Amino acid sequence: MPEYRTALGASGLEKITLLGKDLADDVMGNVGFGELSFWLATQRRPTKGETRVFEAVLAALADHGYTPTAIVTRLTYLSAPDSVQGALAAGLLGGGSRFLGVTEDTGRFLHDVLAGLEDLPVDDAGWDAVALQTVRDQRAAKKFVPGLGHHVHKNGDPRTPRLMQIAREEGLFGPHLSLFAAIGRVHPEVLGRTLPLNGAGVCGAALADLGLPLELLRGFALLARTAGLIGQLAEELRHPVANDIFLSVDLNNRSVAPDPYEPGGPRG
Amino acid sequence: MPEYRTALGASGLEKITLLGKDLADDVMGNVGFGELSFWLATQRRPTKGETRVFEAVLAALADHGYTPTAIVTRLTYLSAPDSVQGALAAGLLGGGSRFLGVTEDTGRFLHDVLAGLEDLPVDDAGWDAVALQTVRDQRAAKKFVPGLGHHVHKNGDPRTPRLMQIAREEGLFGPHLSLFAAIGRVHPEVLGRTLPLNGAGVCGAALADLGLPLELLRGFALLARTAGLIGQLAEELRHPVANDIFLSVDLNNRSVAPDPYEPGGPRG
Amino acid sequence: MPEYRTALGASGLEKITLLGKDLADDVMGNVGFGELSFWLATQRRPTKGETRVFEAVLAALADHGYTPTAIVTRLTYLSAPDSVQGALAAGLLGGGSRFLGVTEDTGRFLHDVLAGLEDLPVDDAGWDAVALQTVRDQRAAKKFVPGLGHHVHKNGDPRTPRLMQIAREEGLFGPHLSLFAAIGRVHPEVLGRTLPLNGAGVCGAALADLGLPLELLRGFALLARTAGLIGQLAEELRHPVANDIFLSVDLNNRSVAPDPYEPGGPRG
Amino acid sequence: MPEYRTALGASGLEKITLLGKDLADDVMGNVGFGELSFWLATQRRPTKGETRVFEAVLAALADHGYTPTAIVTRLTYLSAPDSVQGALAAGLLGGGSRFLGVTEDTGRFLHDVLAGLEDLPVDDAGWDAVALQTVRDQRAAKKFVPGLGHHVHKNGDPRTPRLMQIAREEGLFGPHLSLFAAIGRVHPEVLGRTLPLNGAGVCGAALADLGLPLELLRGFALLARTAGLIGQLAEELRHPVANDIFLSVDLNNRSVAPDPYEPGGPRG
Repeated sequence: MPEYRTALGASGLEKITLLGKDLADDVMGNVGFGELSFWLATQRRPTKGETRVFEAVLAALADHGYTPTAIVTRLTYLSAPDSVQGALAAGLLGGGSRFLGVTEDTGRFLHDVLAGLEDLPVDDAGWDAVALQTVRDQRAAKKFVPGLGHHVHKNGDPRTPRLMQIAREEGLFGPHLSLFAAIGRVHPEVLGRTLPLNGAGVCGAALADLGLPLELLRGFALLARTAGLIGQLAEELRHPVANDIFLSVDLNNRSVAPDPYEPGGPRG
Repeated sequence: MPEYRTALGASGLEKITLLGKDLADDVMGNVGFGELSFWLATQRRPTKGETRVFEAVLAALADHGYTPTAIVTRLTYLSAPDSVQGALAAGLLGGGSRFLGVTEDTGRFLHDVLAGLEDLPVDDAGWDAVALQTVRDQRAAKKFVPGLGHHVHKNGDPRTPRLMQIAREEGLFGPHLSLFAAIGRVHPEVLGRTLPLNGAGVCGAALADLGLPLELLRGFALLARTAGLIGQLAEELRHPVANDIFLSVDLNNRSVAPDPYEPGGPRG
Repeated sequence: MPEYRTALGASGLEKITLLGKDLADDVMGNVGFGELSFWLATQRRPTKGETRVFEAVLAALADHGYTPTAIVTRLTYLSAPDSVQGALAAGLLGGGSRFLGVTEDTGRFLHDVLAGLEDLPVDDAGWDAVALQTVRDQRAAKKFVPGLGHHVHKNGDPRTPRLMQIAREEGLFGPHLSLFAAIGRVHPEVLGRTLPLNGAGVCGAALADLGLPLELLRGFALLARTAGLIGQLAEELRHPVANDIFLSVDLNNRSVAPDPYEPGGPRG
Repeated sequence: MPEYRTALGASGLEKITLLGKDLADDVMGNVGFGELSFWLATQRRPTKGETRVFEAVLAALADHGYTPTAIVTRLTYLSAPDSVQGALAAGLLGGGSRFLGVTEDTGRFLHDVLAGLEDLPVDDAGWDAVALQTVRDQRAAKKFVPGLGHHVHKNGDPRTPRLMQIAREEGLFGPHLSLFAAIGRVHPEVLGRTLPLNGAGVCGAALADLGLPLELLRGFALLARTAGLIGQLAEELRHPVANDIFLSVDLNNRSVAPDPYEPGGPRG
């Protein structure tokens, strides 16, 4: 019979522990929710500075208005109001490669570049050299640089300088943010035009500098978004729009003849 | 063409607003994640005391070890490691009536009792009288009192007195908590035995006293659990148990003959 | 160590069984998908007639164009194209009380009425008498009769007579369909206007007459819808509309001031 | 205002169409569920032979006993019995790269190889030559050949010859199956040992030969699995095991001390 180890929650007759602490006496009332989320993910209590950077990232990612995930949560609640958990889960399922994935992709990308360096640069000039090579390599491989570019904030994403400032204030401006900032400085030389460092990307860099597990960077974006989706549901309850969205699609539906699928590949 | 109003996130070329504030300047670095989650759900910034009670509730509900939701998230990640969002969503889908619903049920139940009172009691004796009638009514209707009883913490759930204490410290011990506490005092007189006020129930009472939308009380339990499930995934990544869980079921599978379903109802 | 019994799939070194049959030799190539789905749910192989009625129900429920579930699946795929399973799961999560629940509600409702009868009627006059009492009881209780009424097919839902015809052809027009048909005949006498028996309702009646588990009637609607949602995704891949849907919402978003939530209940 | 075209379901006052047909008159009672599912995905009505191969694939993939997906659906239903849609969705979310992905991976892999050929081989010797090169290329690239190998059916997966036989009987043994069969013949020469062609892989080859959209091959596995998961829920309702599974994990939980996460990457 296998044993299943865990350092997370455990219950006894009189006492509940969480992360080795007494839940009631040591955690409740003493530990904020951002701090606790960080602690659960790393099994290490973050410092005040780490918590501040982490919570700034969560704020940056919590809600962006009528994204597909927000629309999905509202429509699912319209259709199945008996299941709040279903509406939230449906919204989170949109948290994939296109809309929430940039955070994770950027964190991983920066990490991989850093892992290939023998020594970390010691000044901006050093970071610029690494960044220049990085952007050139991506261009040669005909790949994008994750975190670069934004379809709305073409002159700069206001979250990016703000998060960098907060990280600096807390002494947590580490190598991932340093490389990301350098990419922002040098990429015009290679690409021939200036693109903004976007907010999702800088969040990935900051989370990586906090030492959070790279495999779960998307998870933190999803945690932030869960709070945002609850906000969407709360607003939907008081000022519903989901039925109008549904009708605006259904009433503009144009029924067309079937268009038989031609398989793209070779057939015998 | 309908308009879709929202007071949540909005983006312009240079600026991002959230809840009417400048996201970068006013929210990031200044607003904690628990505070922001409350704000998103109510569109009202909570006080420090409200935030503390709210975060204590989230801590109480974040993780309870190997619950079905935690096992589900780990197994889904084992089966589909390409989709962190799927693993989290699958776990949240267990947040229904049986395992996470007590918080919502208790909040609604207390709210309905309070809504039927002409005046709120002014002292413990008054609350005890209301509670006595409430427990008697439930018993007469052969219904349980939500939030009463726990299969492990038979001598008392340590979260309950702690959350009440925090609410008192912050001046937020309102009518829902008052009624819940009174139920704890008087129910043995009706039921003939002493049951603990459980942690999920006291959380529902506290959230209702904070004025959070009753329709979404389950949503806050799910928010807390999202942080817990990320913790479960992080632990699974380093000390995997999901494959052992899967094998312990599959290897103890006993193949039996089909047992044809006999419909329970009348047939023509 | 518990044993986990199952009569469903089981694998040995050389052989795979399903429902006690050899999967390769007896099931593959010999059992249609509708037939197999029925068999899996009841552990009893359906007759040809039962399969025909069951598949007619699945056809009736498979797709209704741009429903919220279809829109949700398309938007989720737009947002997370890396996860087909997430897009399908998100769509199914809309299969709750409002849009897919009528099938289950009607089946259960008819079943409950039938369970209260000492003897089943033997002719239409007998069924009409039961139906009249049933509609009167619902009206007195200020409740709707599930399966009655449709927002588009005001003159009659074409699926209803067709499914009844198929069930008659196969000798499977049982008590649930008999009662449902009688409700269609008598309700104007009580309600003062004529409402159509809707397709979702007649499907619930037919599934109940087939003896399928009432707790899972919604499940069969979801099975049918899974096929429909794959069709939606296939169409989206070739003629995408999800991005236009998203933009039509996002571009008509009107940013408004926060509207602080006033809790509905009494406060201390 | 955009228009949203669709050839799937459409409703008018008197008539419902599906795929350009009258749903009630032409589809219900006349079209089986497997046939309809194929039709929905391709907007082309399959032949009887295509339907038979397609339904054989669905049968092969419908249920494999206590897989993670089946356990997840049972546990989610235990935890949230109010939401059948949540239990099914949670199970489907396990349909990712590891457990259900082989079907899609194999179909795509074979397709890519075929797309690189100038002419298709005309006999087994020709296919063997292509297959030999294919396996050598994969080996040189240190990659697996999708669909090759099985952890239980080491002497051969019984589904593989059976599906090939059915495809031959129906004249639908096309280039994907031909290449897959040839890989089965020649791989020992390259790999030095004999591995079985697994059932998930042969299903992917057969679906690709049917001309179904490669992007959705995983979708058909999920459709099959939806039927299987309903079977799992039906069995759970009558012979519950989910609570025993939960307890077998929870009771063998070993609470350990937190193990702080050391970030893998370089730190500043």
